[in-house]
Amino acid sequence: MAPGADARVRRPPRIDSVNPGGGTRVSGTTHDDYTDRYARRVRGMTASEIRALFAVASRPEVVSLAGGAPYVSALPLDAVGEMLAGLAAQHGATTLQYGIGQGAPALREGICEVMAESGIDVGVGASPDDVVVTVGGQQALDLIGRLFLDPGDIVLAEGPTYVGALGVFQAAQAQVRHVPMDADGVVPAALAQALADAGRRGERVKFFYTIPTYQNPAGVTLTNARRDEVLEICARAGVLVVEDDPYGQLGFDGPAPLPLRARRRDGIVYLSTFSKTFAPGLRVGWILAPHAVREKLVIASEAQILCPSAFAQAAVTGYLATMPWREQLKTYREIYRERRDALVTALADLMPAGLTWTTPAGGLFVWAALPAGLDSKAMMPRAIAARVAYVPGTGFYADGGGSGHLRLNFSFPPPERIREGVRRLAGVVEQELATRSVFGGPPPEGAHRRVRPGSDSPGPDLA
Amino acid sequence: MAPGADARVRRPPRIDSVNPGGGTRVSGTTHDDYTDRYARRVRGMTASEIRALFAVASRPEVVSLAGGAPYVSALPLDAVGEMLAGLAAQHGATTLQYGIGQGAPALREGICEVMAESGIDVGVGASPDDVVVTVGGQQALDLIGRLFLDPGDIVLAEGPTYVGALGVFQAAQAQVRHVPMDADGVVPAALAQALADAGRRGERVKFFYTIPTYQNPAGVTLTNARRDEVLEICARAGVLVVEDDPYGQLGFDGPAPLPLRARRRDGIVYLSTFSKTFAPGLRVGWILAPHAVREKLVIASEAQILCPSAFAQAAVTGYLATMPWREQLKTYREIYRERRDALVTALADLMPAGLTWTTPAGGLFVWAALPAGLDSKAMMPRAIAARVAYVPGTGFYADGGGSGHLRLNFSFPPPERIREGVRRLAGVVEQELATRSVFGGPPPEGAHRRVRPGSDSPGPDLA
Repeated sequence: MAPGADARVRRPPRIDSVNPGGGTRVSGTTHDDYTDRYARRVRGMTASEIRALFAVASRPEVVSLAGGAPYVSALPLDAVGEMLAGLAAQHGATTLQYGIGQGAPALREGICEVMAESGIDVGVGASPDDVVVTVGGQQALDLIGRLFLDPGDIVLAEGPTYVGALGVFQAAQAQVRHVPMDADGVVPAALAQALADAGRRGERVKFFYTIPTYQNPAGVTLTNARRDEVLEICARAGVLVVEDDPYGQLGFDGPAPLPLRARRRDGIVYLSTFSKTFAPGLRVGWILAPHAVREKLVIASEAQILCPSAFAQAAVTGYLATMPWREQLKTYREIYRERRDALVTALADLMPAGLTWTTPAGGLFVWAALPAGLDSKAMMPRAIAARVAYVPGTGFYADGGGSGHLRLNFSFPPPERIREGVRRLAGVVEQELATRSVFGGPPPEGAHRRVRPGSDSPGPDLA
Repeated sequence: MAPGADARVRRPPRIDSVNPGGGTRVSGTTHDDYTDRYARRVRGMTASEIRALFAVASRPEVVSLAGGAPYVSALPLDAVGEMLAGLAAQHGATTLQYGIGQGAPALREGICEVMAESGIDVGVGASPDDVVVTVGGQQALDLIGRLFLDPGDIVLAEGPTYVGALGVFQAAQAQVRHVPMDADGVVPAALAQALADAGRRGERVKFFYTIPTYQNPAGVTLTNARRDEVLEICARAGVLVVEDDPYGQLGFDGPAPLPLRARRRDGIVYLSTFSKTFAPGLRVGWILAPHAVREKLVIASEAQILCPSAFAQAAVTGYLATMPWREQLKTYREIYRERRDALVTALADLMPAGLTWTTPAGGLFVWAALPAGLDSKAMMPRAIAARVAYVPGTGFYADGGGSGHLRLNFSFPPPERIREGVRRLAGVVEQELATRSVFGGPPPEGAHRRVRPGSDSPGPDLA
């Protein structure tokens, strides 16, 4: 769900602005005269690792497996353009005007149609009245953080989890406790344990944040059986579930398991976005929330952005009403399936022994574990020098975990670029291993074990 | 700067949902099971008065003088549509994709051109690198609140001030102290006094929030002489100035005084928006901030929305690059001048004695003072019943002030509707006065004094 490279960026920072030891710094940072005026929440505010990476990764000579961008060139761009022209020319008096904070009723009805495709329908109490339109999934998360999080509150989240969610929780001065996953998604016993531990410490767990389907970054999906178990555990503890579902309709091998919100109505705040299924450039997402929560979300959103873009909303409404969006979903799925296959095949063919990875059944990401002892963040500048980019795993943990992992995106680069990227990355990993064997250190664990693509094992240290 | 009526709202709340006594409530509010889970900041969260009003005021039979919507029908909508079509058809791969958090460089350059028209140029250190693109002026304000405000911090702001800014400060759990204005804008001695008072109490004043030009809602403009004085007072106290300038290029009687940011580079965060000069439906605004502050603003914005809409940004960039935007500004100015004249003439012709008002030299709003003893909030349901809407003055104060005032918008309704609205409103005011004289109470102060339009006096109790 990370932003894609903006081809129009003219002045990318120098490569030396990626500081492998301590996050990122930007060339030309001036003395900050305002330090004593900032709010307390600013103290922990640091640029996400993804941010500086993208500036570098956007250079044309770099194969970027670091992004999270959908392949929007697969859209019928002429037809989209024609629709947008009509929205301005014939309906400009409303589409270029202010709208209402909750979002346009016609779009909220369209959103309910989209959710019904995933099994979230009137039968489980999904109504346009309980939908809040947001500026992409990110504002949805931010509003939820604003509504529920006081400084010091605990949030449970999968480990690893979406880097943008960590940014929200950090801005809210909340503490994140990661709950381990395995190939079947989050481990219910570990979730129960985390809740029990928090209870024993007298801590306030505000919610469990989860991306159950085609998880970002891990690429795993919570199984049907575990979904009910997770809901039961949270309900018993009186803990709200925040279900983030940007990828649920991007399954390659048949439909995904029913969302949590399709199984239970109460105690769940559901969010999703059109960024992966239509176009991220419009920034249209949504929240489906219990009625009382929805009212508060609207007030919070009005304080934040007044109202979402009427034009962007009309664009999505028009897209859903007049264009074959279900066919487009199919197109995206087919493209991504081919690219996932290209990625995992290249990993199997080209990577040195000891590197393992997940084989996602949908979504945009593969999560890979480096041979033991290698550090994905330290390796990053050498990867960039070899003209390949990825996201180091540490970005997906609030607690410093993930240094042995990396996230690889397969939705944006075409198959042959993916293979070239893996080839370059394999060279970098091999060099790391060689350097390591010269300068000592224990032999990388499992260096002679080769995990086949399709084994679906996230590796022991994903958990 | 309030949202306009959305013509597509299908189910406006019942008129009885405007509760004149205690803010607003929404029909069908359910029991809130989540009360004990909300963050502390949610406790003071109430729907803005404008919100419920708009739903009612959007009915076609109501003349709404309550909005803050620009007259976007004055745009060359066909040409805009054609431009937007090209952005998707020919550049969809970038315009429908993610962008970068700070905003597209080409747009930030265009923004610098727009600011240069107001005198904020390279000579005073305005650089595209120090611009952050935001989701309208509202997100700009919210980001500033996030960066600087801890719970309990003090914000100084004009009294009255922009209702959306009050929403931001409230969400940040800050306390607002109003500084009085007169016909020349905020009173410098009162600002110095407010700072001295806060200092004596050991309070932390984080910034002075001001709309110096064509103020919303008061319709007054800070004079040239006072601008320097205000800057000097804030600099001496080490207090940041947040200059909100959405209307500065909408002057009817010649150019506005130079913005504060054109006079001084340090200690000022400047924000503006294309919502009033182009179209609010795209939600594109910006902040010009000192470099260190700008870096933090970008991080905060990424946590909130990831990046602003690439499509909306391309739309504004294309508008500035290929369409006659300076001519369009002239068109808006001419339309609004005519409508302002219609409003103040109608007020002079039709209102009972004792009602006074400002005659703004630009912007969108007139601020009126009711005859003494009348209450604009209590009068509101009767105005709606008479099919005219305005915003009661209390919405523009954090401290309960403004009950004798109302804000009237002249940018959206055509001149003859404005006159009809004033005619209806005059009838309501006369009825209030009659009721009051029957049921007793002191005779309204100044009931026999008639303030002529153009006198520019905001009335003694604006201060």
